[in-house]
Amino acid sequence: MKVGVIGGTGYTGRELIRILRRHPRIQNISVYGRNPGKCMTEEFPELRGLYDGVVLPLDPEKIVKDVAVLFMALPHQVAMEMSKPFQGKVLLIDLSADYRLKNAREYEKWYGIPHKDKEALVQYVYGMPELFRKEIKNARCIASPGCYPTSIVLAVAPLLEKKLLKGNSIIADSKSGHSGAGKKLSEMLHAGSVSENLQAYKVSTHQHTGEVEQTLTHMNAGKKVYLTFTPQVLPFDRGILSCVYVDLVKPLSQGDVTDLYANHYKKEPFIRLYNNKAAGANPVLPTPKLVAHTNFCDIAPIVDTRLNRVTILSCIDNLVKGAGGQAVQAMNIALGFNESEGLNV
Amino acid sequence: MKVGVIGGTGYTGRELIRILRRHPRIQNISVYGRNPGKCMTEEFPELRGLYDGVVLPLDPEKIVKDVAVLFMALPHQVAMEMSKPFQGKVLLIDLSADYRLKNAREYEKWYGIPHKDKEALVQYVYGMPELFRKEIKNARCIASPGCYPTSIVLAVAPLLEKKLLKGNSIIADSKSGHSGAGKKLSEMLHAGSVSENLQAYKVSTHQHTGEVEQTLTHMNAGKKVYLTFTPQVLPFDRGILSCVYVDLVKPLSQGDVTDLYANHYKKEPFIRLYNNKAAGANPVLPTPKLVAHTNFCDIAPIVDTRLNRVTILSCIDNLVKGAGGQAVQAMNIALGFNESEGLNV
Amino acid sequence: MKVGVIGGTGYTGRELIRILRRHPRIQNISVYGRNPGKCMTEEFPELRGLYDGVVLPLDPEKIVKDVAVLFMALPHQVAMEMSKPFQGKVLLIDLSADYRLKNAREYEKWYGIPHKDKEALVQYVYGMPELFRKEIKNARCIASPGCYPTSIVLAVAPLLEKKLLKGNSIIADSKSGHSGAGKKLSEMLHAGSVSENLQAYKVSTHQHTGEVEQTLTHMNAGKKVYLTFTPQVLPFDRGILSCVYVDLVKPLSQGDVTDLYANHYKKEPFIRLYNNKAAGANPVLPTPKLVAHTNFCDIAPIVDTRLNRVTILSCIDNLVKGAGGQAVQAMNIALGFNESEGLNV
Amino acid sequence: MKVGVIGGTGYTGRELIRILRRHPRIQNISVYGRNPGKCMTEEFPELRGLYDGVVLPLDPEKIVKDVAVLFMALPHQVAMEMSKPFQGKVLLIDLSADYRLKNAREYEKWYGIPHKDKEALVQYVYGMPELFRKEIKNARCIASPGCYPTSIVLAVAPLLEKKLLKGNSIIADSKSGHSGAGKKLSEMLHAGSVSENLQAYKVSTHQHTGEVEQTLTHMNAGKKVYLTFTPQVLPFDRGILSCVYVDLVKPLSQGDVTDLYANHYKKEPFIRLYNNKAAGANPVLPTPKLVAHTNFCDIAPIVDTRLNRVTILSCIDNLVKGAGGQAVQAMNIALGFNESEGLNV
Repeated sequence: MKVGVIGGTGYTGRELIRILRRHPRIQNISVYGRNPGKCMTEEFPELRGLYDGVVLPLDPEKIVKDVAVLFMALPHQVAMEMSKPFQGKVLLIDLSADYRLKNAREYEKWYGIPHKDKEALVQYVYGMPELFRKEIKNARCIASPGCYPTSIVLAVAPLLEKKLLKGNSIIADSKSGHSGAGKKLSEMLHAGSVSENLQAYKVSTHQHTGEVEQTLTHMNAGKKVYLTFTPQVLPFDRGILSCVYVDLVKPLSQGDVTDLYANHYKKEPFIRLYNNKAAGANPVLPTPKLVAHTNFCDIAPIVDTRLNRVTILSCIDNLVKGAGGQAVQAMNIALGFNESEGLNV
Repeated sequence: MKVGVIGGTGYTGRELIRILRRHPRIQNISVYGRNPGKCMTEEFPELRGLYDGVVLPLDPEKIVKDVAVLFMALPHQVAMEMSKPFQGKVLLIDLSADYRLKNAREYEKWYGIPHKDKEALVQYVYGMPELFRKEIKNARCIASPGCYPTSIVLAVAPLLEKKLLKGNSIIADSKSGHSGAGKKLSEMLHAGSVSENLQAYKVSTHQHTGEVEQTLTHMNAGKKVYLTFTPQVLPFDRGILSCVYVDLVKPLSQGDVTDLYANHYKKEPFIRLYNNKAAGANPVLPTPKLVAHTNFCDIAPIVDTRLNRVTILSCIDNLVKGAGGQAVQAMNIALGFNESEGLNV
Repeated sequence: MKVGVIGGTGYTGRELIRILRRHPRIQNISVYGRNPGKCMTEEFPELRGLYDGVVLPLDPEKIVKDVAVLFMALPHQVAMEMSKPFQGKVLLIDLSADYRLKNAREYEKWYGIPHKDKEALVQYVYGMPELFRKEIKNARCIASPGCYPTSIVLAVAPLLEKKLLKGNSIIADSKSGHSGAGKKLSEMLHAGSVSENLQAYKVSTHQHTGEVEQTLTHMNAGKKVYLTFTPQVLPFDRGILSCVYVDLVKPLSQGDVTDLYANHYKKEPFIRLYNNKAAGANPVLPTPKLVAHTNFCDIAPIVDTRLNRVTILSCIDNLVKGAGGQAVQAMNIALGFNESEGLNV
Repeated sequence: MKVGVIGGTGYTGRELIRILRRHPRIQNISVYGRNPGKCMTEEFPELRGLYDGVVLPLDPEKIVKDVAVLFMALPHQVAMEMSKPFQGKVLLIDLSADYRLKNAREYEKWYGIPHKDKEALVQYVYGMPELFRKEIKNARCIASPGCYPTSIVLAVAPLLEKKLLKGNSIIADSKSGHSGAGKKLSEMLHAGSVSENLQAYKVSTHQHTGEVEQTLTHMNAGKKVYLTFTPQVLPFDRGILSCVYVDLVKPLSQGDVTDLYANHYKKEPFIRLYNNKAAGANPVLPTPKLVAHTNFCDIAPIVDTRLNRVTILSCIDNLVKGAGGQAVQAMNIALGFNESEGLNV
């Protein structure tokens, strides 16, 4: 099978190429972009010997003939300006934020710019297999979820599905490896800011808030669920630890909650739960390092029975389950492949 | 002035010695311990040329004659077994957890062992200057606060004092440099666990919970305030970032809250507030690096007006304001010195 | 094909399992050890969902019937006590240091203990494909090279082969991620020693010195080549940067040396050279991050024409090309597979 | 005493201000620059409460009247354009590279630009107290040494002084915390390049080479000593470990060399030697962490008796002994203060 990637100059594109290379069904990967002729290894010397291809011209007519699947690994705003010619012509998987929000006004609110491809929003399925597997199966356009939202939504889904959430909001305190903030030079990403430090940013205003709220509200039968969100930059490359705080409508024991999660996720190939029932003084808990370079989401719900509150620890690799890995998982579903194919490494 | 330190083999003791060396009123520092004759630089080669003294014998009668101030930098449990002979005889400042909780049953609950010096608890003043300056002034026994509690309590004090807390609980998501977990070898502190990682531990069960709840309840006129607490180990040496989540009893604007904090802390020498009223897209926010090696507590309250919830970022150096620095600040107060003496570096 | 691993509780074993899982020719991996019944995921929770097998009993008779290839991922000293029953019965690939030195006296000198399986030493081929590909092809016992030696030997091989080394010694200043020092608890591997630090250790006495000297002397037609070696522990998990200093017998330009390396390594699948002829002010140079999680050895020779000295930068992932990856590369050769099979990821 | 600092927007200036604040003889610190009125805390929020002063106008006539000592903490090239009006009028201490090389042609060679204040070069004393204490005593213009050169020169001085160097060159493999590369945004200083990595740069071409060679040649009675130099960027903030390799003209034991260093540096307040005579399997060796935030240079010479080669480990904090600390040490000498005043913390 032949697949294409538009935009290979960011971390998302690079990681996607690595993941696609390992996929046994994929024989050919083409990268398309605005700088045709440029070698991918100029941008990413680590790809030498792995992907030495040059960037091909951005010719939509040719692309739709050449590839069966097209991944858009572009910054938001750019993606919605370039997607039109591909919609419906290939299996289109967008890793930007542009097609995640169903409501164009919400998009404008969180991203500060008007949406330029509103009418297409309805065609896109939100590519989170654990929630929308059925819809992904029939999708031709997929909006692959954001990294923070993946870690947060998967953390609370079992409780929300059982209508156990008290009140109308949750809190997510999320710490991400600095690759989540990208490659562009900035004060915040200068080594002097990142090393030996933990930087909170966009507190209660981060654009992923809208994405999480849309998904949680959908799961809550349309009753609005709010998110208080504190993203923070960790002094290493990859991995997210989200601590999500949820109040329960009724008292539940640790055993109840552990069972509820086990039951909810029992068939999921990429969710790993931590059994705290048997936990000693130092139970194994999810950490970013345990999921690094994998497509797993590791989850541990911990009940504070004094307060009927649950602290849910949730870890993913932001570049795999939080980006390229989840996109390939969705591709596998949409094409009828084994869902884990090429990802179980 | 002559001061003594019992227990110099931990990070707390080492940092305390460094701080005391810079204090202009202190001419002589003696370290006492169970291994008299041992040179401090064997344990801490970094002290060579700074503190080359040997450990002196633990002879209480001699000690109380020799020093005006005695710091106990011992593990909990050990401190309460050794404090008796010094109480009332010198200005005694205990950096362990043994004399922080006023209620011996609470101590047993959180530390898992019975308290061995219950009757002395009443003599100890909780050494947090911002809350108990008056009491410290007249104290002869001071229980210096824990690192996490310092960062959490100072974050919410202005709101609690104005009775703005809704409900009976707060949430603190606290990330600490690994020095907070000490020098002892353990799986959790092996480089393989710490590097490129963020480890949550003792979620909702950490022993500092009781200390925070005691202080917040005291500020709340005795009405119980609960804490949901998630401590986490960062992959660097020093510094804490606590993100504290509080619901408000009534709507307040960012300006209201900024003013409230500014007013509450206007005379405090070691609280630095961040003015988010004027904040642009990337306001400067507290980080562990900005307070490293200082006695400051940096605080920024950020209002989520949609939910009447405040996220308060609070940073300290766990070894300075969270340990030796705060202890010396209390000493300055108790002895009538300028509160910042020797600390303003 | 079925393969076995003895000793899966160290980083080497864990990484080897990960690599073997990706190998398309391998259908079954058995781990054998002294704690049969123990689940590998107890030791390495990161393997959950990837390798959930339990440790099987160490029954040599059964093992040699069950597997075609057996990897020994044991500490030195232990390996030589357990290898006998497997020699000649399977393709035996030893990742410890026990069979690398051909001379038992050298072994005793560098490892401080007498060798316990001297007569078997002659059967083992040193498993560095770039130097001993032909010998590996016919080998039944392979001693897989150490991590530091791999980075150092590959750095100087082209110069040595052309007899360009002046004098009888080279210098290697090698910096390794802390995983190279293993999982055992120790002061040196405590986070407090590792974080924000660079620790030299065993300066001019490290046991890998003998291994490097044996190989370089062999390449130098038996004329002794000495090594001055400074190993250092970096504050992150994986990767080695060796800076190797060599004096030349005659003046060579940067172009000469670049061409010499290009020619020497032109057919090697896992050597990546950096062309400094075209280098601008900031040429891309090898770094540990560029090779992390790959089997590549990245090399850049840089000529100081004022002194006829070459500084060779050489990077590998100590757990891949420096351990499990190189072992699998040797296996591929010995079994007649494509040398890159399962490794080109 | 009043002192001035020109250029406070780099790490060197910030650290200098911190050091000067602790100096008991200094009552007043003025910062001068091109952006008068700007608050220093805008650039460095960590200085809030420590140095809240605003930048004063760059008016040379006023400055020379106001201050007794003036530190120039400017980038090279800028310093030599602005120094003229201050030379001879105040105690002028330049922390840039502009006045370190005595020979303007050497300057042009290493810095790629012609020198603009050649005639003043002769007035400047190279401010390394361990080598030029006498000259500093009478100096009015001091060129404070570079960070790498400090760590390298102090490592080899005892051997060179005794004429023990064989050949005409040494090798220095130097690893520096990333603060050594400054605050400016660049690919090399992006967190993605720095974290979990070690980056060699300017191999054998770094501009500090000339500075080291000038000093070593001076110590070698004018006989040229060359340096092969490999600078590398570490993934943390501060500290240098230089491993310096020197061949001896005659065999010396470890004891000989240890004694030689002990004797050479016996009166130095800021040199700490490590006694390897008594070293066990894991002797304490210099590391960047042991000297962080201090003015010490920690040195351990280790003899490889097989080769008559000495590996010298040498550590400094690049921002203290490698910049502001050494500058203040020179000031103390020039002004007749106790050499350690304000630095012994």
